[in-house]
Amino acid sequence: MRVSFDELKSEIKRVFVKNGMSDEKADFCAQIHTESTYDGIYSHGVNRVSRFVDYIQKGWVDINAEPVVEKDLGAVKVINGNMGPGILNAFYAADQAMEMADKFGIGMVGLRNTTHWMRGGTYGKYAAEKGYVAIMWTNTEACMPPWGAKECRLGNNPFVMACPGEEGGPVMLMDMAISQYAYGKLQVTRLAGKQLPFPGGFDKDGNVTSDPGAIEESMRIMPIGYWKGSAFSFMLDILGSVLSDGIGAADLNAATKGSCGGCSQILIVVDPSKITDGAKMRDTVKRAIEYIKGAEPDEHNSSIHAPGEGSERFHKEHDEKGIFVDDTVWEEIKAL
Amino acid sequence: MRVSFDELKSEIKRVFVKNGMSDEKADFCAQIHTESTYDGIYSHGVNRVSRFVDYIQKGWVDINAEPVVEKDLGAVKVINGNMGPGILNAFYAADQAMEMADKFGIGMVGLRNTTHWMRGGTYGKYAAEKGYVAIMWTNTEACMPPWGAKECRLGNNPFVMACPGEEGGPVMLMDMAISQYAYGKLQVTRLAGKQLPFPGGFDKDGNVTSDPGAIEESMRIMPIGYWKGSAFSFMLDILGSVLSDGIGAADLNAATKGSCGGCSQILIVVDPSKITDGAKMRDTVKRAIEYIKGAEPDEHNSSIHAPGEGSERFHKEHDEKGIFVDDTVWEEIKAL
Repeated sequence: MRVSFDELKSEIKRVFVKNGMSDEKADFCAQIHTESTYDGIYSHGVNRVSRFVDYIQKGWVDINAEPVVEKDLGAVKVINGNMGPGILNAFYAADQAMEMADKFGIGMVGLRNTTHWMRGGTYGKYAAEKGYVAIMWTNTEACMPPWGAKECRLGNNPFVMACPGEEGGPVMLMDMAISQYAYGKLQVTRLAGKQLPFPGGFDKDGNVTSDPGAIEESMRIMPIGYWKGSAFSFMLDILGSVLSDGIGAADLNAATKGSCGGCSQILIVVDPSKITDGAKMRDTVKRAIEYIKGAEPDEHNSSIHAPGEGSERFHKEHDEKGIFVDDTVWEEIKAL
Repeated sequence: MRVSFDELKSEIKRVFVKNGMSDEKADFCAQIHTESTYDGIYSHGVNRVSRFVDYIQKGWVDINAEPVVEKDLGAVKVINGNMGPGILNAFYAADQAMEMADKFGIGMVGLRNTTHWMRGGTYGKYAAEKGYVAIMWTNTEACMPPWGAKECRLGNNPFVMACPGEEGGPVMLMDMAISQYAYGKLQVTRLAGKQLPFPGGFDKDGNVTSDPGAIEESMRIMPIGYWKGSAFSFMLDILGSVLSDGIGAADLNAATKGSCGGCSQILIVVDPSKITDGAKMRDTVKRAIEYIKGAEPDEHNSSIHAPGEGSERFHKEHDEKGIFVDDTVWEEIKAL
């Protein structure tokens, strides 16, 4: 079905308030879930609401918790998220990082003991729209085998990079999971009776495969770049733990507080306005985008995108027809 | 042939001194080239010496240049490398970043107008061995098509992450180029008459291929994770330029001062000793490594590695038999 932005937000807010959140916090979180949905990231928008409520009810998210600064090194703060809502903790951390960047040029927050921040790009976009450069990531429970293994022992540890853009919003790596495909993508592809465009994992016998069902069965999804992504994801996991005084995949799996329950997030923010001239920065970004877009397209008549452009087509569609919400998901929320 | 560490270093040093470098600088650079060779990274060690000398002779590297701090924001410095030797500039920048991390918890250097730093992992390892966490990268001239294009418009922008390890050296992503395979790997595989273990690019007709020769011909190497690596590499390029007040792939290609001539490097260093307890950090890293290594191996009886372990087998071989140097490369250096 199709709903308006306000209708969707108010329904999500109602559910959050009903589950004990203050009006102010519920309004803020509902706004973020609705924005992600508007951007076409349904998985971390409206489709995630019922799971979040489930986590509240199980005590895996403490909606009354407040983040606390435990250490302050000047340009680094360690913040304990106290298992509060991931969205609120991450915004608090991003604000703290920007405040430090105002003073010292760069600021880093290591946020530990927090919960799922939904779409990682939310916080990179937030910082970049205020004129900052951002590098951020979260560690996650294990959902991917390390290279050479059968068993899931690595998180997909989504990674975010954002830079203020010339116009039309930041240039950014919105939320790059280190797995080649999300489980959501495998499911959608399988239900459509299709194969993945490129191999996405191994079947239960260890053969590389593009068959989404075979990968869902084996749970052997592949990291981007094979051994490279495996190493990259591992580094994101341990730097996540070390730089936040928090925990990584091994302990997250043992904690069994749901997806990302107790995870660590790193938010690094730099103020480029003190490094380079604003007009020069916009020109650098503009020319870099023009440079890649000016390349001769390949034989598949692909269009060449700058990172972060993906949401434009969803905005257009959602503005014209209303925001898409899966009927089942909408009924589920209505019933919460 | 096989040479000792000292023999190799002294021969490289001789060449550098003969080409106008001071004894002190030549000694330092020769040490780094020799260490990379000892670690098995021939491409950025001994095999790169003659190209470096060629760049000196062409005026693309100014061996007498000194790096200059142009901006100091507290925890961020912008340094102009003045086209000096990349190794010396990057060590200077790493030292500056660590000094800032001592004061503020984190330090970032944006190093612009510098030259090839050889193996990126050198600087991450340097910082991690002193107890720091490091995130670093360089941008490069275009050598890879953006996703959906035929023409090379993206750098491979090697990315480094390092963390102090429990024992036996840091845990690190040594030098992760964002291309799936280096051209060196394509050449070696082609000469051995083999196929790549996984597709590495497109042939001239746009077909995905594992044939190294076909990719060398088309110059259409693939980014890790297809569209994901394309976006990641692009972000490394523009953040490289923006955070150093420097230039990226578009201008590097126009500058035609050789590989990485005029490039930008970002060195972010954090002092984890102020964030977490040293024993706890070592335990976190140790358990994370044990966790991935404890996974059931796959059907190919692969061994599961922690990032940064790759050099051990080279050390063993080089200690036993001497350091391997390709005969042609050795003759070339001798003649320089």
